[in-house]
Amino acid sequence: MTTDIAICRAATLLPIAQVAARLDIPEEAIEPYGRVKAKIAPERLPTATSEGKLILVTAINPTPAGEGKTTTSVGLADALNRIGKRTALALREPSLGPCFGMKGGAAGGGHAQVAPMEDINLHFTGDFHAITSAHNLLAAMIDNHIHWGNKLGLDVRRIVWRRVLDMNDRALRDIAQSLGGVANGFPRESGFDITVASEVMAILCLARDLADLERRLGDIIVGTRADHSPVTARDLKADGAMAVLLKDAIRPNLVQTLENNPAFLHGGPFANIAHGCNSVIATRTALGLADYVVTEAGFGADLGAEKFFDIKCRQAGLDPAAAVIVATVRALKMNGGVAKADLAAEDVEAVRRGGVNLARHIENIRMFGVPAVVAINHFAGDSAEELAAVAEIARAHGVEAILCRHWAEGGAGAEALAHAVVALTETPGQFGFLYDDDLPLFDKINTVATRIYRAEGAVAEPAVLAKLARWEKTGHGRLPVCMAKTQYSFSTDPSLLGAPTGHIVHVREVRLAAGAGFVVAICGDIMTMPGLPRVPAAESVRLNAEGLIEGLF
Amino acid sequence: MTTDIAICRAATLLPIAQVAARLDIPEEAIEPYGRVKAKIAPERLPTATSEGKLILVTAINPTPAGEGKTTTSVGLADALNRIGKRTALALREPSLGPCFGMKGGAAGGGHAQVAPMEDINLHFTGDFHAITSAHNLLAAMIDNHIHWGNKLGLDVRRIVWRRVLDMNDRALRDIAQSLGGVANGFPRESGFDITVASEVMAILCLARDLADLERRLGDIIVGTRADHSPVTARDLKADGAMAVLLKDAIRPNLVQTLENNPAFLHGGPFANIAHGCNSVIATRTALGLADYVVTEAGFGADLGAEKFFDIKCRQAGLDPAAAVIVATVRALKMNGGVAKADLAAEDVEAVRRGGVNLARHIENIRMFGVPAVVAINHFAGDSAEELAAVAEIARAHGVEAILCRHWAEGGAGAEALAHAVVALTETPGQFGFLYDDDLPLFDKINTVATRIYRAEGAVAEPAVLAKLARWEKTGHGRLPVCMAKTQYSFSTDPSLLGAPTGHIVHVREVRLAAGAGFVVAICGDIMTMPGLPRVPAAESVRLNAEGLIEGLF
Repeated sequence: MTTDIAICRAATLLPIAQVAARLDIPEEAIEPYGRVKAKIAPERLPTATSEGKLILVTAINPTPAGEGKTTTSVGLADALNRIGKRTALALREPSLGPCFGMKGGAAGGGHAQVAPMEDINLHFTGDFHAITSAHNLLAAMIDNHIHWGNKLGLDVRRIVWRRVLDMNDRALRDIAQSLGGVANGFPRESGFDITVASEVMAILCLARDLADLERRLGDIIVGTRADHSPVTARDLKADGAMAVLLKDAIRPNLVQTLENNPAFLHGGPFANIAHGCNSVIATRTALGLADYVVTEAGFGADLGAEKFFDIKCRQAGLDPAAAVIVATVRALKMNGGVAKADLAAEDVEAVRRGGVNLARHIENIRMFGVPAVVAINHFAGDSAEELAAVAEIARAHGVEAILCRHWAEGGAGAEALAHAVVALTETPGQFGFLYDDDLPLFDKINTVATRIYRAEGAVAEPAVLAKLARWEKTGHGRLPVCMAKTQYSFSTDPSLLGAPTGHIVHVREVRLAAGAGFVVAICGDIMTMPGLPRVPAAESVRLNAEGLIEGLF
Repeated sequence: MTTDIAICRAATLLPIAQVAARLDIPEEAIEPYGRVKAKIAPERLPTATSEGKLILVTAINPTPAGEGKTTTSVGLADALNRIGKRTALALREPSLGPCFGMKGGAAGGGHAQVAPMEDINLHFTGDFHAITSAHNLLAAMIDNHIHWGNKLGLDVRRIVWRRVLDMNDRALRDIAQSLGGVANGFPRESGFDITVASEVMAILCLARDLADLERRLGDIIVGTRADHSPVTARDLKADGAMAVLLKDAIRPNLVQTLENNPAFLHGGPFANIAHGCNSVIATRTALGLADYVVTEAGFGADLGAEKFFDIKCRQAGLDPAAAVIVATVRALKMNGGVAKADLAAEDVEAVRRGGVNLARHIENIRMFGVPAVVAINHFAGDSAEELAAVAEIARAHGVEAILCRHWAEGGAGAEALAHAVVALTETPGQFGFLYDDDLPLFDKINTVATRIYRAEGAVAEPAVLAKLARWEKTGHGRLPVCMAKTQYSFSTDPSLLGAPTGHIVHVREVRLAAGAGFVVAICGDIMTMPGLPRVPAAESVRLNAEGLIEGLF
């Protein structure tokens, strides 16, 4: 079988200015990074006269079988371009750290990829490094402030701002810092998260422009005084320097699909402790240039689509025109109880049993007033009966299911999906949020738990409720909530596949991301600094004699 | 007074391809990074038919009065171009971290600068971030290896590989890591250095090509087993992945002077625990394209020039054609005992007293067989008598001293220096190293101490000598030595200005940089992770309404 990387290397990429020309991006707005990557300066673009239609690609709950959400996004964008619709992608940038753990990149697959795969998965245009620098400058300024007298009266036991690296490094999860004597500051406990978990990442992805970015950076709460009053990055005078470090990173990156269609890749916040979508600036830039914009949200629709609608669309004033729910026969079979090793055998009943997962995601998307279609991402072993079973489930819930072969065929394999999406967007949708801004914070959590996860309800210890009450008093009560739970189940138990009911959502901890503008509700164990596996992919990564990377993908 | 940044912003920069065209760099070798920065792919350049002449710019011992070594390098390169000599610069990239401590960048000054100053001082083309990633990947792989069973038998008490960040952050100098329980590994002490102190930085700057880079990365010794036998990055299988992370960083960066002449800025290792010069690849690339290449070494000639000759030229087979020793009247007065506050008053005698410092540097440079000239970097308050005194000192030691006004006038102000340098290079030099490869390691240290620093001798504790003996047995005895001492004095006491004699060089500690290919001899307190000052520059850095950076320079 030809690998993703072999397919990617065999593609002929256009000079990035030619890709930009497809969207009539003027030359003065293009900052090239090599020959096939560029940053686009939104302020140098002509004012948009119309607004493109925004298509969200989301999915059923992920399983080890794979769903192919990014692959479907790329295939759909290529297909829309093939049928004559001026279309751009708006996707997340992958994180460098995990590349050295497990083999495999994150830029689509088969004949539905964005390129150049190696660069995109490594340093790309340096955005994540800039975020790392900005985040860690704030951390250094916190400890420096304390070292020189702590005028702001920060309680060193109550500092919540950690440091970040774009690296899988378990040794940095928990550290004791400022050891070694007077010159090195006051010893305290702290640690590192991976860069995608940084609030600076979430901020970059939700900011409308540089001024909004700087304001949000200033709003970051780094910790509190002994009386619980918050200390912000603005109090530390770190916001200006952080914005300076991010002045290039805030510009969306332009690359291309293997079929030379424009793709904006920009930002990549976690989909658990953050909202899991590419930047608002990239989405808005794309909408101003194209007639259709295909975007994606992290994990399944319970986490990804809900946050896309309730956090990103709410903050950015976006109006999604349609949603594509990606499903595979294999993943539905796993949801229906089949083990990964047994996926090759035909099992129509298992597809039907697992179909309850798809059915519930369809219901949820429709609850937001967004017209939807199911994309069945075709795998070689799928049987006609299994595929028919998926279509039947979709139809029973009022939506179409389209078989897509973009992995094998590129955009040509997703033309039917493209036509279905165009048809959906021709009737104006009735998009609305799940909850209003003025609902109390815990009621927002409970609304997501009961209406999206179909739980009996959400519960939390008094200390958690007290925190929420405090934030409502400090003016943060109108923020949306960002649920951090397992992506594998509607519930907080990763082993409860299908469409569980009767479960309870335990909110273990809440965190205030005042700069990003949401309250994180942590339900379960969420890892913010991954480790490397026993045999990390890094061990087999190297440049071969022709200077090509081996072992990474 | 017009500031450096105002002068830089007022300059008209050429598109980088036009700058490259001045050196006949073919378009396929240019990787643009925005409009006025590029990386050059040396493997896509035509084979050089001749080799340019290499001019080293060095200086007297630095003082708080400032010498202007980079400024003089830029002025000289502009002047050489003005008098019709095809000339390129090869300089170090500045480090991002210190920018947020003290105000001020590192890209020349006045009308002798490289541009764009903001980009060069911030993320530039991402080289330092790539070095940070490669360095920290090795660190993560060390702890991961131990976590999963420690097959190599690393002694966790004897790991010498720390982590790095391009940040001034004293809180990270000494940490306890891997706390928090079984899942986070085995607790141990460690810490962070600033990225410029990374051995990966020194390696990138000494490697001849990608293959040599990977070999050197593999040679890095991360620690030892209990029996003192070394464990390398190659043993951990980290070398391939580290090379992949550095595949773009290894390409030299091309920018321009304010007079639009080509300048390669590439790499920037510390000048104490490392050798303090730009990359061999940049120097060699420049030599293959230009008739004259102006380069620079860190600190004064006792540290910078000695390491340039004995480490960089030795490893890379470079043959320097001439050296320029930068001096200022103000700095000589400080060497002659005048306090900084009193520098404005004319004091010819102080210049003569401080002149012993200049005289000794002249003698030292001539000891290497390199023809030299003194560049007097003119300051507004210098009197004619003071300037005459400097010229007299130079003449008495057999070299010319040329008054230079490049800070105020750009290349036009350094034309006399350019003519003098061209004249020097017309007679072939007789360059030779200070010591031979096969001299025992401690004898090499002693040779530098007695012949360059004019000390009575070097001394070290038995434990230090035992380490050197061990490395001679493991095949590292032929490496050159890299002295880490104060830059302010020929001695190891920063307060001993002028030309001290009778002092002793105490070697407190030695470190083996097996990948970079030198043995570091630490003589005094060397800080490898700076801290931020009481009021860091970061507090006043911000973007103004026009999107321009304020407060950084």
